[in-house]
Amino acid sequence: MSGLTREDVTGMILSAKRQAGFTWEGIAEKIGMSPVWTHSAAMGMNAMSQDKASAITEILGLPQEAALILQESPTKIWEQTVPTDPCIYRLYEIVGVYGPTIKALIHEKFGDGIMSAIDFDMSVTRVENPKGDRVKIEMSGKYLAYNAW
Amino acid sequence: MSGLTREDVTGMILSAKRQAGFTWEGIAEKIGMSPVWTHSAAMGMNAMSQDKASAITEILGLPQEAALILQESPTKIWEQTVPTDPCIYRLYEIVGVYGPTIKALIHEKFGDGIMSAIDFDMSVTRVENPKGDRVKIEMSGKYLAYNAW
Amino acid sequence: MSGLTREDVTGMILSAKRQAGFTWEGIAEKIGMSPVWTHSAAMGMNAMSQDKASAITEILGLPQEAALILQESPTKIWEQTVPTDPCIYRLYEIVGVYGPTIKALIHEKFGDGIMSAIDFDMSVTRVENPKGDRVKIEMSGKYLAYNAW
Amino acid sequence: MSGLTREDVTGMILSAKRQAGFTWEGIAEKIGMSPVWTHSAAMGMNAMSQDKASAITEILGLPQEAALILQESPTKIWEQTVPTDPCIYRLYEIVGVYGPTIKALIHEKFGDGIMSAIDFDMSVTRVENPKGDRVKIEMSGKYLAYNAW
Amino acid sequence: MSGLTREDVTGMILSAKRQAGFTWEGIAEKIGMSPVWTHSAAMGMNAMSQDKASAITEILGLPQEAALILQESPTKIWEQTVPTDPCIYRLYEIVGVYGPTIKALIHEKFGDGIMSAIDFDMSVTRVENPKGDRVKIEMSGKYLAYNAW
Amino acid sequence: MSGLTREDVTGMILSAKRQAGFTWEGIAEKIGMSPVWTHSAAMGMNAMSQDKASAITEILGLPQEAALILQESPTKIWEQTVPTDPCIYRLYEIVGVYGPTIKALIHEKFGDGIMSAIDFDMSVTRVENPKGDRVKIEMSGKYLAYNAW
Amino acid sequence: MSGLTREDVTGMILSAKRQAGFTWEGIAEKIGMSPVWTHSAAMGMNAMSQDKASAITEILGLPQEAALILQESPTKIWEQTVPTDPCIYRLYEIVGVYGPTIKALIHEKFGDGIMSAIDFDMSVTRVENPKGDRVKIEMSGKYLAYNAW
Amino acid sequence: MSGLTREDVTGMILSAKRQAGFTWEGIAEKIGMSPVWTHSAAMGMNAMSQDKASAITEILGLPQEAALILQESPTKIWEQTVPTDPCIYRLYEIVGVYGPTIKALIHEKFGDGIMSAIDFDMSVTRVENPKGDRVKIEMSGKYLAYNAW
Amino acid sequence: MSGLTREDVTGMILSAKRQAGFTWEGIAEKIGMSPVWTHSAAMGMNAMSQDKASAITEILGLPQEAALILQESPTKIWEQTVPTDPCIYRLYEIVGVYGPTIKALIHEKFGDGIMSAIDFDMSVTRVENPKGDRVKIEMSGKYLAYNAW
Amino acid sequence: MSGLTREDVTGMILSAKRQAGFTWEGIAEKIGMSPVWTHSAAMGMNAMSQDKASAITEILGLPQEAALILQESPTKIWEQTVPTDPCIYRLYEIVGVYGPTIKALIHEKFGDGIMSAIDFDMSVTRVENPKGDRVKIEMSGKYLAYNAW
Repeated sequence: MSGLTREDVTGMILSAKRQAGFTWEGIAEKIGMSPVWTHSAAMGMNAMSQDKASAITEILGLPQEAALILQESPTKIWEQTVPTDPCIYRLYEIVGVYGPTIKALIHEKFGDGIMSAIDFDMSVTRVENPKGDRVKIEMSGKYLAYNAW
Repeated sequence: MSGLTREDVTGMILSAKRQAGFTWEGIAEKIGMSPVWTHSAAMGMNAMSQDKASAITEILGLPQEAALILQESPTKIWEQTVPTDPCIYRLYEIVGVYGPTIKALIHEKFGDGIMSAIDFDMSVTRVENPKGDRVKIEMSGKYLAYNAW
Repeated sequence: MSGLTREDVTGMILSAKRQAGFTWEGIAEKIGMSPVWTHSAAMGMNAMSQDKASAITEILGLPQEAALILQESPTKIWEQTVPTDPCIYRLYEIVGVYGPTIKALIHEKFGDGIMSAIDFDMSVTRVENPKGDRVKIEMSGKYLAYNAW
Repeated sequence: MSGLTREDVTGMILSAKRQAGFTWEGIAEKIGMSPVWTHSAAMGMNAMSQDKASAITEILGLPQEAALILQESPTKIWEQTVPTDPCIYRLYEIVGVYGPTIKALIHEKFGDGIMSAIDFDMSVTRVENPKGDRVKIEMSGKYLAYNAW
Repeated sequence: MSGLTREDVTGMILSAKRQAGFTWEGIAEKIGMSPVWTHSAAMGMNAMSQDKASAITEILGLPQEAALILQESPTKIWEQTVPTDPCIYRLYEIVGVYGPTIKALIHEKFGDGIMSAIDFDMSVTRVENPKGDRVKIEMSGKYLAYNAW
Repeated sequence: MSGLTREDVTGMILSAKRQAGFTWEGIAEKIGMSPVWTHSAAMGMNAMSQDKASAITEILGLPQEAALILQESPTKIWEQTVPTDPCIYRLYEIVGVYGPTIKALIHEKFGDGIMSAIDFDMSVTRVENPKGDRVKIEMSGKYLAYNAW
Repeated sequence: MSGLTREDVTGMILSAKRQAGFTWEGIAEKIGMSPVWTHSAAMGMNAMSQDKASAITEILGLPQEAALILQESPTKIWEQTVPTDPCIYRLYEIVGVYGPTIKALIHEKFGDGIMSAIDFDMSVTRVENPKGDRVKIEMSGKYLAYNAW
Repeated sequence: MSGLTREDVTGMILSAKRQAGFTWEGIAEKIGMSPVWTHSAAMGMNAMSQDKASAITEILGLPQEAALILQESPTKIWEQTVPTDPCIYRLYEIVGVYGPTIKALIHEKFGDGIMSAIDFDMSVTRVENPKGDRVKIEMSGKYLAYNAW
Repeated sequence: MSGLTREDVTGMILSAKRQAGFTWEGIAEKIGMSPVWTHSAAMGMNAMSQDKASAITEILGLPQEAALILQESPTKIWEQTVPTDPCIYRLYEIVGVYGPTIKALIHEKFGDGIMSAIDFDMSVTRVENPKGDRVKIEMSGKYLAYNAW
Repeated sequence: MSGLTREDVTGMILSAKRQAGFTWEGIAEKIGMSPVWTHSAAMGMNAMSQDKASAITEILGLPQEAALILQESPTKIWEQTVPTDPCIYRLYEIVGVYGPTIKALIHEKFGDGIMSAIDFDMSVTRVENPKGDRVKIEMSGKYLAYNAW
């Protein structure tokens, strides 16, 4: 009675992508956005603008209602406080080991504040290397200074 | 009776750095290493080689025993499963929101595997921007493919 | 050997305030800041500028080293995931009950984004009321829109 | 056999609102209540009086049974001890950072007691600002003094 | 340098009580308060008025500074989310088993609201019974109705 | 294939009660038991004797099988270690704040032992009061002395 | 200033026992109690009567004050929700695996109720067996029937 | 498509037992095993041999496939780290209070090792007692000595 | 609409294996891989190459789509932070007891680094022994040295 | 007053080993035991026999009392439910990923039972490999069959 849910739309996207043989990079290019943002928005971790939602809906052959849902502000939930998947856990471990270091260097370079996770972007690239190719992750977030009043 | 501990050495480094008015970038340059690694090793999250341990000990005027301890393999412990400091929490949040996306893109670009957090390096830089300067974090880790046997 | 710690300074401030019979409102007025920010910085949850650190050090008769520590970027740690003190728990309960509502209204009024807890200020006031005086808490944080890239 | 549940009614309200293109502010105005309370009661975090339940049922075209359920005292449950959604987490962070400060100022201004979260109201408004508009949250709760006996 | 702490005062009270051979009931009677409140305030779970703090300080031969600390608003902390002591656990179990029942009956008798734990009092008495004496606990808290606005 | 479950019976009772317009007090009176016990047993937190199970089944028009299930020893499970509902949380808070006090007074009045939560009864009543009516909760449990052997 | 603590007394007992070369069985016999109860009371998990406290104090050469502390009602605290020591964990595992079975058989043999952990005793014995000797643990607790009222 | 599950078989056993009016003791006798083991295996906490699985399947009129499932090695899972049911919690409490004592006595009587929870058996019996009948639980597990190599 | 899931494929494999009377060792031999890897990949803890996925699909008579899913990179999730099944718990216990020892010996033999869990293989074998057969687990992982930069 | 503790002895061993420039392998050889067992017993995770305790005490120049403590049955405690150190975490991850596989293969090869973690031994060796040396861990534990009774 209440129509599609976010989970339905996520399932449809994954299924249509598998059947069409698309990659995230390919889909991202088609809608003119980065692969990181595109995957994230498709999985319900970011909201799409009207035109991006229409574009992805058309490309993957989803119903009209899906475009509406892709524009809503999602409630971002992750179930595992500590992720068990080894690929994601390594990122968690990096935060544990290097978090205080990143904090110290932000304070040294900028002052008392943080890197925003909202006004934020990221890329993941493959870097060739004779000793074994490397994953390169680049994050950029606006510096936000603590307010004093 | 059992001499200095890791905690003692960390405290001595922070105190000597404050009194000398050094920065992490400055100390890193003096010992010929990156600021991220230097801070991390000084805080007991990485082990130093003999020459780096001697160099930092000399620069900061620490006792000989400190150089020995800085060369030991530390047991890396963080107390808070979810970090409360806002600057570090934002990094945890990024893992929660974008972790599955990074995983999906690594699989798309490399195959079934992960980015190593051991054969790994990182930098933190300040990027000028008219709308507000940005923190740039670059991580690079060797791709490790899952073994099948 | 490593001088004063944050905890020492916090203890000194509380002790000096008690002996001098000061209030937080009084101290705040003397250093020209709000009571919320002043208490928070004194307790190690915010960093002071040089002049505010000097001012409070002088007013309360603290040693010079205290002023240096009050200017450092503190690592903000709270031990209890769910606070047990009834006065603080009620605030946690408000977040549990009304958090999704605040989120929905921010999205309705602004779009997909959040209220910053960094570019942020707050006041606590007493409002007279014949049925019983009321506590008024006013928070103001910059709206931050999610980036798409 | 046991008729509608709270979850059914919440789903119906969200679906009807989306189809009718209503806003929470619009619905709130129609039933003569504030947007915060209206959203909260519609989501099952507050009970409605008979006339408000009838009004919202009529406006959104819900079945009669829905009005009965909206009048029942809901059991207020939130699943995540620490909320992961960034918009809601920032509120949790504010409680962690400023909770002890709010407590100290309530005690200074009122005596030993708390701000009620039951005899309580709240508003969320948009404040224009040349440096970026701000979210303003105002809470008001009755002061309750600890009893001694 | 910062004088007595709450913990010091609690320890002094317990020690002085043991040496003097007092009971909580006896101390309560001497200061004109109930045994429940008296024990609770002596253990740092409630604040004393000036005259009660002076009275107990005098009776137990504590230093002047103790009276000041007994008047401060304590931060109420319990370490164990689920208490292990069998005597206290049984109370926790009663909340688990009968909590929803108490809620249902409050709603039936009063409407949508709660029993205050702040405007609250309690007694513990021994009731003789041929099948074995019984512990009687009586709690009374002001009914607080949820506000709608 | 395996017939009704406890959850089915609980749902049927709530639904039948709502349709019949009964109160818990009314049902309790009809089966000659207290409202606390009646609600608790109906919700699956206590087992009924054969005659009480038959009585409530008849009054609410439930199927025969329901009476059998109401006589079984339920496994008492509560999902939330710390309850979030404000009405139930206040009871948890009372255990946290006053639990050690109740323990101390039981020891003072009885010796080393506890109040039973099994050989136990409870009532909830409304007490009129010009400053606002009060909820009165009375618990009575048999004193059990620790055995030494 | 506040004299001996429970922890002091526990430490003294362990030290004196080691120096005297006593066993728990030997100490238990000397004070005329069982080894289980004796160890448990010596470790602060049970209170001693005056004569047993005097006896053990004399046997082990402890100061007078220790006898007083051994008579106080201890607050029973265990730090690990799930014990890590393999010998103790196996007992926890038995509760996990066989707990529902014990419950089912108690209900079958007695009715709706529990085995008391207060009016309770236990023994640990060695049983010779050609396939390897066995540990035998016997527990006996009074059956307590749930009250209905 | 994948046939019966463990949960299905458990449900069938409970239902058939209720309809047949059997007791666990009765079923156990019919298959020639102890009541503790029989209940435990029927609930999926132990695997049955082929003949016991056939016997119980025949007695209770279960389908053939059930006998196969009852022979598989179950994965033993309990959801609640700390059990809430009062009857099972008391066993958990006994482990908390007496676990270190059992460990100490095993070490005193056997040496450095544990009681096996695998090569293990248990009985639950009713012991008549004029002061109230008692539950007797007897556990026997093979002593396993720690290996040194 | 979105076809088979991982869970479906896992269920099909277990069911087909049971009906065919295969063992893991047998299936592993048929597809030319080790039993550990084969079980792990079949349960969704490792991804298969195209030919292995085709082989197992054919052997067990699974639909074509299953082969596609078996090739996808699974998200490795385990629900229980501490496993309750005794067979798996013992492995967890070994990590708790011997983890620091393994770490110390790796550091002694290799330097500052770890054993990879990605470039990793394992076998489980039965070793005959007159005192009782033994389970032998052999793990081999590439040594990864911490990077310094 | 109560002499040395386990922690004291552990600290002494680590300090003496560092000063003497010993390795674990060297110490193990001197006392005629394996390196894994030697490190584990030295760190308080296993008890030593009298001769091994005397040997290690003599080799490292520890006081006589240390030998007594090394012979006591230690209570094995690890603080972190999920270890954060990357070297130890990888072992935890292996249990999470491969635990159910090890269980399935044990059942296939032996029947319903487990690998003992008590009658257990382990080795850690370095295996040369042109693609990078490998860590080899071999565990061997006695198979224990579940008892049926």
